[in-house]
Amino acid sequence: MMHDSAALDRMFQALSDRSRRGMVDRLGHGPASVSELAEPLTMALPTVMKHLAVLEKSGLVHSEKSGRVRTYHLRKDALEQLDHWLAAHKTGWNKAFDHLERFLADEQSE
Amino acid sequence: MMHDSAALDRMFQALSDRSRRGMVDRLGHGPASVSELAEPLTMALPTVMKHLAVLEKSGLVHSEKSGRVRTYHLRKDALEQLDHWLAAHKTGWNKAFDHLERFLADEQSE
Repeated sequence: MMHDSAALDRMFQALSDRSRRGMVDRLGHGPASVSELAEPLTMALPTVMKHLAVLEKSGLVHSEKSGRVRTYHLRKDALEQLDHWLAAHKTGWNKAFDHLERFLADEQSE
Repeated sequence: MMHDSAALDRMFQALSDRSRRGMVDRLGHGPASVSELAEPLTMALPTVMKHLAVLEKSGLVHSEKSGRVRTYHLRKDALEQLDHWLAAHKTGWNKAFDHLERFLADEQSE
């Protein structure tokens, strides 16, 4: 399967910060405004908005402005891309670990 | 489930580079030496070693030196931690998208 490397770079980068992972958690329960996303966090609003900009640039989230309120959503297509990458690698990892386990079992039984 | 935030930060950061993801791919097929990992890549050995150091610090890989050869392995425990985080969030994402789909279906039928 082909993957968009630059998009994956940005998504993994976006998820490498616990505050941004917290925002992804929150958006997993449904769309939220900037102030709803900021509410549980002990950080200044400009910092929250900077994190949201990183998430939006990565393609993990999408936002829309209605009047004075900007609302954020998770983007299913981006999440599926991330999930496919990991699923493909999990298969490889499991195979490698099965080989290792069989090798260790053989070593012990000798 | 509890997650080690600092460890997840480092793992996602390590995976945010396509060269490092390529090394994780390769190690998914079994342990490899530095020169085996460098072979398919068009980069200088010191650059390869820098990427491997980032992967090792993140906990995704582990290395052992035997004589003059350093061999790298994937670390199952780290990969499981990453997988648990993603699996937990996938459930939330799917629920959110189901809600959205039902909402859109309701809107259309009105």
